[in-house]
Amino acid sequence: MPETPAELRAGFRSGVSGPTAGLAPGFRQADFLAVPADWAYDVLQFVLRNPDPCPILHVTDTGSRRTPLAQGADLRTDLPRYRVWRDGRLADEPTDVVDVWREDSVTFLTGCSFTFDSALTQAGLPWRYPGRNVAMYVTDRECRPAQRMRGPLVVSMRPVPPDQVDTATRITTLMPTSHGAPVQIGDPEELGIRELSKPDYGDLPEPGPDDVPMFWACGVTLQAAIVASRPPFAITHAPGHMFITDVPEPQAIL
Amino acid sequence: MPETPAELRAGFRSGVSGPTAGLAPGFRQADFLAVPADWAYDVLQFVLRNPDPCPILHVTDTGSRRTPLAQGADLRTDLPRYRVWRDGRLADEPTDVVDVWREDSVTFLTGCSFTFDSALTQAGLPWRYPGRNVAMYVTDRECRPAQRMRGPLVVSMRPVPPDQVDTATRITTLMPTSHGAPVQIGDPEELGIRELSKPDYGDLPEPGPDDVPMFWACGVTLQAAIVASRPPFAITHAPGHMFITDVPEPQAIL
Repeated sequence: MPETPAELRAGFRSGVSGPTAGLAPGFRQADFLAVPADWAYDVLQFVLRNPDPCPILHVTDTGSRRTPLAQGADLRTDLPRYRVWRDGRLADEPTDVVDVWREDSVTFLTGCSFTFDSALTQAGLPWRYPGRNVAMYVTDRECRPAQRMRGPLVVSMRPVPPDQVDTATRITTLMPTSHGAPVQIGDPEELGIRELSKPDYGDLPEPGPDDVPMFWACGVTLQAAIVASRPPFAITHAPGHMFITDVPEPQAIL
Repeated sequence: MPETPAELRAGFRSGVSGPTAGLAPGFRQADFLAVPADWAYDVLQFVLRNPDPCPILHVTDTGSRRTPLAQGADLRTDLPRYRVWRDGRLADEPTDVVDVWREDSVTFLTGCSFTFDSALTQAGLPWRYPGRNVAMYVTDRECRPAQRMRGPLVVSMRPVPPDQVDTATRITTLMPTSHGAPVQIGDPEELGIRELSKPDYGDLPEPGPDDVPMFWACGVTLQAAIVASRPPFAITHAPGHMFITDVPEPQAIL
C-alpha cells in the first residue's frame, strides 16, 4: 500500500533518504530554498520574474519551520536530503539541517515536476526512470535577474514516445504550479545541451527506441542561482529529494 | 474610434482625469501601489498571501518608473489620478506624482476587475455603470497578514440579471489575474456590508429590477491595508482610476 505524505515525511525525519520521484502520487512535491532574511526580498523578486522554473507554493514567515502545505511538518528534518551552501559553494549534503538552521531563515517552497509524473503515467505514458532520479541539465538560457539574484535556467528531461508527446504537453500545460508546458521538445542543442548522456544532476533514464526528449523548467534553477549569486548562506533540497506536501494535485481530465 | 492604451496614457500624462471603467476594452488594467524599498518585502509577502484581491502583474526594480507591461510609460504621470498617503492617512489626490516621487520606491502593479468588464459585456451582460466608477465596499473579512501589513478585504460590486449570474461566474473564474471568481453572490450581509446604497468607494450603479449583486475581490484592498498598516509613505491610484497596460487580456470562449 502506498505511503501517505505524512508517513513518508516521518521516514525522512528518522533518516530514510533517496529521490522522491514516484512517491505519494497525486500529491504536490516542492523544491526547497532557505536563505537569510536579508536575501529574502532578492529571492522573492527572482522567483516572481521566473515563474516557469520557480512557481511559488509558499514563502514562510521569517524564522518559521512550518508551512500550511504540510500539517505538523518540520522543514529542518522532513526532506530526504538537503544541500548546505556557503558563498555559493556546496558545503555539505546532510539528511537534516537542525544543526545549521538559522533563526533568520526565510524558506521558499516552489512547484516540482515530480507532481505531474503521476498524471502522465495515469494517461498511459511509460515510466522511464523507475527507482532513480530524473535527469537535469543546465541550459544556456539566462533567467531574468532580480536584485542580487541571477543564474541559468535548469531543465528536467523525460523521454516520451512520439505519439504521446502531445498528451504530455497538454497535461503539463494545465499544471502551471508544477512548471507547466514543456520549454523545449526534441532539440537539446537549442537549449545549449551538448551531451544528453551527461546530465548535470540526477540519473540517466531508460528511453524507448524512438523516444523524444521533452524538457521542462526545473526548480534546481534556484540552486544554480545560488551558485551564480553567492549569498553567504543557503539551504536547498538535494536535487530530486523533494519536500512532499499534503496538498492534492487536481489532475486534468483530457 | 476607441483610443489605444498608449493614447489614453498620453492623455492622462497631459492632465486628463476620470475613472477608467470601460476604457481600452480587451487590455489589462492594473492597480498601483508604490512604497519605500524598506516596505517592499512586507507588501510582497502580503500580496502573495492574498492573491484574490492582489494578483501580481509586475513588481518594479527599486527606483524604476518603468514597467514591461506598457512600453514607454512613466509610472509617475500615466495614471488619471493618484492618492498620496502619509502614515496611513490620505494626504493628497494629484493627477501626477512627479514632485513626491521617491528614488527608493518599489511599485506593485496588480490585476483589476475592469479587465473583465469587456468580457462580460461581450457575453451580453448589461453595462450597469456607464460613465461612472464601480461601487466598492470594505468587508468584515480580514486578509492574511504578512510582516507589518494587514487589513480588510475590499470588494467591487456589479448588479447582474439572475439568468446571467452563472455566465459572469464562469467567465471571471477563468480570469484569475483579474481577481477570478466572485467571492460572494447575492448576500452583502455575509460580507458585513450593511447598506448596499452606501459604497465606501466609487459610485452607485443603475441596477435592473431583479439584479443580483455580485462581489469580486478588489485591488483597493491594498489601500485599506495602507490605512491599517501605516507605512510612512505610499502612493496608490485613486479608486477606479487605473493604470492601463498594453497587455491584451485573452478572453475565454464559453
